[in-house]
Amino acid sequence: MQYPQPIAKLMDSFMRLPGIGPKTAARLAFHVLDMKEDDVLDFARALVSVKRELTYCSVCHHITDTDPCRICDDSSRDRSMICVVEQSKDVIAMEKMKEYTGLYHVLHGAVSPVDGIGPEDIYLPDLLKRLQDEEVQELIVATDPNIEGEATAMYISRLVKPTGIRVTRLAHGLPVGGDLEYADEVTLSKAIEGRREF
Amino acid sequence: MQYPQPIAKLMDSFMRLPGIGPKTAARLAFHVLDMKEDDVLDFARALVSVKRELTYCSVCHHITDTDPCRICDDSSRDRSMICVVEQSKDVIAMEKMKEYTGLYHVLHGAVSPVDGIGPEDIYLPDLLKRLQDEEVQELIVATDPNIEGEATAMYISRLVKPTGIRVTRLAHGLPVGGDLEYADEVTLSKAIEGRREF
Repeated sequence: MQYPQPIAKLMDSFMRLPGIGPKTAARLAFHVLDMKEDDVLDFARALVSVKRELTYCSVCHHITDTDPCRICDDSSRDRSMICVVEQSKDVIAMEKMKEYTGLYHVLHGAVSPVDGIGPEDIYLPDLLKRLQDEEVQELIVATDPNIEGEATAMYISRLVKPTGIRVTRLAHGLPVGGDLEYADEVTLSKAIEGRREF
Repeated sequence: MQYPQPIAKLMDSFMRLPGIGPKTAARLAFHVLDMKEDDVLDFARALVSVKRELTYCSVCHHITDTDPCRICDDSSRDRSMICVVEQSKDVIAMEKMKEYTGLYHVLHGAVSPVDGIGPEDIYLPDLLKRLQDEEVQELIVATDPNIEGEATAMYISRLVKPTGIRVTRLAHGLPVGGDLEYADEVTLSKAIEGRREF
């Protein structure tokens, strides 16, 4: 006898999630067995509703339960700025800061020739179309500070600069609260390059 | 704006699982968003069916979808032996070995005075009742090799020995495939104590 059928099936579902192997899946499945029925039903309902109720905004491609999303639909936001990010999670990180009041554009990826992802495979053409239609004055490119993110940022800036729209990139430097001795050389050199007067 | 409601709810459910914090919960929830709808529905169904279809065997307290469970109900099994384990997972580990043909008894815990868990809080009284009713000749105590497991094993052996039933304990020693240099002192001393002639 192996695991009873329902446990085996649940383990299988857990194992499809990133970073969960057979041992963790077994631990989680047995934990579910000991949970209150109401909590398990809530969990199951939450799973289905994430899939059924959420979609991507047709304007900025951020996840949303309304279309256009609440950010695109909010008339109090500054429509002259678009912040370009790679993922919906990045929008949420930016919004937590509560300082940025412009709009967003989620690319859902970054240009990566190694993985065969070109500009047409992410929502880049869509961004260019938005720039033509809307009265945007500044594009803040907030792609991830890694090779793909930098390449994407560079690509966007080359495309957009000739149109006269201001293209900016988030500052590189030491993270606040970080330790100088643990900073890598590239970050440190960017921090020196971007140093400011008191 | 924080996470959209459905994502926040799903993150909440994930965070109730052991070893999953807010960051992992967010990663898993966003992964679910990108999964195929069928897979998500399967996942939700598996969760509910683990809770609804599985119960504990009224005889041995192992998880089961039939009562009594398939092991207790199997007439080909040796009814003169009962192996006492702490959890259902232990039964599954024993069954994987495919050598033991007796019955089981799952305690669902171990005696632990520090945590306020006494013999009455686990299925120990139930075990003693089974020993009176059934024609058991040997009780193999396979509780975990830690303080609580050893204490529980000792307690069981003191209670059962006077009845004339043979009480045995799994052997301690070096794990097969292990490295002598990495064995802790207690295991090593147990391995020497239990040494055998060729």
